Amino acid sequence: MDTDLKIIGYIKSEFTKREDTPKQGDEGGVEAVLHIKEEFSEAMDGLKPGMEILLLSWLHEGDRSYLRVHPRGNKATPMRGVFSTRSPDRPNPIGLHPVTIKSVNGLEIRVYPLEAIDGTPLLDIKNA
Amino acid sequence: MDTDLKIIGYIKSEFTKREDTPKQGDEGGVEAVLHIKEEFSEAMDGLKPGMEILLLSWLHEGDRSYLRVHPRGNKATPMRGVFSTRSPDRPNPIGLHPVTIKSVNGLEIRVYPLEAIDGTPLLDIKNA
Repeated sequence: MDTDLKIIGYIKSEFTKREDTPKQGDEGGVEAVLHIKEEFSEAMDGLKPGMEILLLSWLHEGDRSYLRVHPRGNKATPMRGVFSTRSPDRPNPIGLHPVTIKSVNGLEIRVYPLEAIDGTPLLDIKNA
Repeated sequence: MDTDLKIIGYIKSEFTKREDTPKQGDEGGVEAVLHIKEEFSEAMDGLKPGMEILLLSWLHEGDRSYLRVHPRGNKATPMRGVFSTRSPDRPNPIGLHPVTIKSVNGLEIRVYPLEAIDGTPLLDIKNA
């Protein structure tokens, strides 16, 4: 079974450090731009401003060896298994981001509100 | 960048064929069991009956070469790019399944309602 991910594009964002980045889009997410790779342009057909979509990203700074964490990075909260959290540190650090399309311009999609770090690889876009 | 997915377990379900399987959990999903691999058991800590979780699966029967599809497999609907659909045929066939935990028993988690095919690999469990 081929389980190697294809990177369909990258997120361009004003957030550059994990510690400055909000944990969820509704906690201070900003407008950001998705740069889709040319080879996936056909898959963009049908994406329009105002559409609510779900982005799947690869949280490349996540530590894939973690099985337990302090939820939300708060050391006062007892450790829990990562499967009952949204920690980016987990076996498959896939991020989920519900956003709205502001504009589509060639291979660029402007969305809001997004909390991902600049340069985060994009795995998928789904109809929300 | 290591983008090879880790399979954390498998879905045991009464659905065995793609054509008999509902497209979404709220369209006829059933009770199903997640078999988690021993090596990820620690990550289950904190999962409890009644909890709403989000499953990420690898839709292994999806065709990763598709960039355009007829939405919901209906040939009367004009083709669209896969990024504005929920088709399992897409570059990274990752399924999203919001479910509720019915019970946790060792490495087995019983959930409801789930529409995945028997044997579907599981990638992640997140707090919903």
